[in-house]
Amino acid sequence: MRNYSIGVDLGGTNLRIAAIDSDGKLLEKLTLGAEVKRGRDFVITELCNAIQNLRTKYRGSGELVGIGIGVPGFIDMAAGMVMESPNLPDWTSFPVRDEIEKRLGTTVILENDANSAAMGEKWLGAAREYDHMAMYTLGTGVGGGLIFNGRLWHGMTGMAGELGHFNIYADGHPCGCGSRGCLEQYASATAVVRMAREAIARGESTELERLSHDPVQFTSRSIYNLAVQGESAAKRIFENVGRALGIGVGAMVNSLNLPIYVIGGGVSSSWDAFAPAMFEEMKFRSVIYALTSPAKVGHDKGTIVTRALLGSDAGLYGAARLPLLEGFAQTETARK
Amino acid sequence: MRNYSIGVDLGGTNLRIAAIDSDGKLLEKLTLGAEVKRGRDFVITELCNAIQNLRTKYRGSGELVGIGIGVPGFIDMAAGMVMESPNLPDWTSFPVRDEIEKRLGTTVILENDANSAAMGEKWLGAAREYDHMAMYTLGTGVGGGLIFNGRLWHGMTGMAGELGHFNIYADGHPCGCGSRGCLEQYASATAVVRMAREAIARGESTELERLSHDPVQFTSRSIYNLAVQGESAAKRIFENVGRALGIGVGAMVNSLNLPIYVIGGGVSSSWDAFAPAMFEEMKFRSVIYALTSPAKVGHDKGTIVTRALLGSDAGLYGAARLPLLEGFAQTETARK
Repeated sequence: MRNYSIGVDLGGTNLRIAAIDSDGKLLEKLTLGAEVKRGRDFVITELCNAIQNLRTKYRGSGELVGIGIGVPGFIDMAAGMVMESPNLPDWTSFPVRDEIEKRLGTTVILENDANSAAMGEKWLGAAREYDHMAMYTLGTGVGGGLIFNGRLWHGMTGMAGELGHFNIYADGHPCGCGSRGCLEQYASATAVVRMAREAIARGESTELERLSHDPVQFTSRSIYNLAVQGESAAKRIFENVGRALGIGVGAMVNSLNLPIYVIGGGVSSSWDAFAPAMFEEMKFRSVIYALTSPAKVGHDKGTIVTRALLGSDAGLYGAARLPLLEGFAQTETARK
Repeated sequence: MRNYSIGVDLGGTNLRIAAIDSDGKLLEKLTLGAEVKRGRDFVITELCNAIQNLRTKYRGSGELVGIGIGVPGFIDMAAGMVMESPNLPDWTSFPVRDEIEKRLGTTVILENDANSAAMGEKWLGAAREYDHMAMYTLGTGVGGGLIFNGRLWHGMTGMAGELGHFNIYADGHPCGCGSRGCLEQYASATAVVRMAREAIARGESTELERLSHDPVQFTSRSIYNLAVQGESAAKRIFENVGRALGIGVGAMVNSLNLPIYVIGGGVSSSWDAFAPAMFEEMKFRSVIYALTSPAKVGHDKGTIVTRALLGSDAGLYGAARLPLLEGFAQTETARK
């Protein structure tokens, strides 16, 4: 009888839960009607009820090892609290981990959502053959996660892996983090829409202009659809996405020389529109990539840059993985 | 009786050798008359003779554990060969490690010189209290080294830690690596001299212009001396150095969230001319640094960015450290 664990994704509109056994087999995946925006106490109660139901249901399937929860924002791993999360304002400075542990009587781990996604892709996705990887999540913002020797690298204060705030254009677009020209300003869904507005302002595209009249339709996805149809301004926007990613991933190759870099999140579904520019830029930016590209040394020895495989489930599955790892209770931060 | 090891620095004009015991106590440091430019076979013979002499001399002091050799360039750790080194053209594609091992009958480890410097500062220098660190060496070029959990991070093909080729200004000055705007183009001694030439061409400084008439005097060091005397163009050059370092180190803080970043190499002696701009830029570029700067959270908990302590001996001492580390014989590259 295998043990199992439960992953939770707190990032989206609704609460998502998955029960997965220690071999990575999905037992059940739920999306609760509970809207995350209804607030912390409501969500915690719904979450605990749903988990209790799963526990009863899978009583015969093994022991619940613990619960991993992926949260958008900075996490204080030692305290088990959310330090900062624009989407979850009432979760900060509240002992989430201890509260849920108390209610359920099982171990709970909070983790940043992009770190959870990295762990998901490492466990069951694009990086499952590798012990070391970097993950980029191209969503509303750009998140990141690093795995060395099969474990998430948290850094000194648990903030490592903010790959969306790599310097791309030092004097570029102002970023929410306070800097300018971060990767997030060129490779997020938000950035794609902004770059489309800039193209419209420059009078470059009547198609984009028409699209922009319907705010609901004016998304990264529909701009991608225009690019696929050959609209030149839309194509250039995704070339900009690719160029920025090439600069960012290229700098990571130069510093860490990892075997694999996985690109996920919603914008990664526009892969064919940005990947050619990304690979071209990487060869230019990183002599290490140029020397170790799969085209040069073969896929099995090369530096792999590839799409994520798990889509929006990466963070959910990765969160479930956390309690299954040995010694997970360590904060693993890198002070000293 | 303690064991000891021998470190070798192949990077400079002359061959340098240090015998150090396992506690880090220096037994002897030598600079041989043997000029590195006289070629591989000459240098290897001189090196082996000098090491045999040391071995005889320290026979009573313990056992020679092995020899570490710091080399400027890319190293194939598995093969024990220099893959590429502009300064040591006749060393490439020759089994250096095996040849010296055969002659001396002891273990030999080749390592990149900036990696060796990182290990030196970790063992006996600025980072000796830390298990994780990044090292920047600001010399003719800019090198780098990363230490996680007390060990050098080599990456998949042994090329990790090329922190001098981080993207600073995407459309900036062409770099020898093939890219543009790398850190090396703004923070090396070569870059300081180039930026001075650019200032002269813009007619910004008669002092710099006068200095440039004597090519021997026209160095990063003498430009620093002008900056210290308050010459405004020279001051701006070191502010540019600081800004570039702030962007580069800031991106590293965002990705790795390490406790300490050590800045060494010849240009680091101009610390007071570039550090203020560097710290200012880091706060702007990295929200993680802004949240964890020593001014904010105290020196013992903060992200430390500091000068190297060992000067030009860092690489020599670090090379000596390598054979003393457990399991050093592993290549430790990160494929898989």
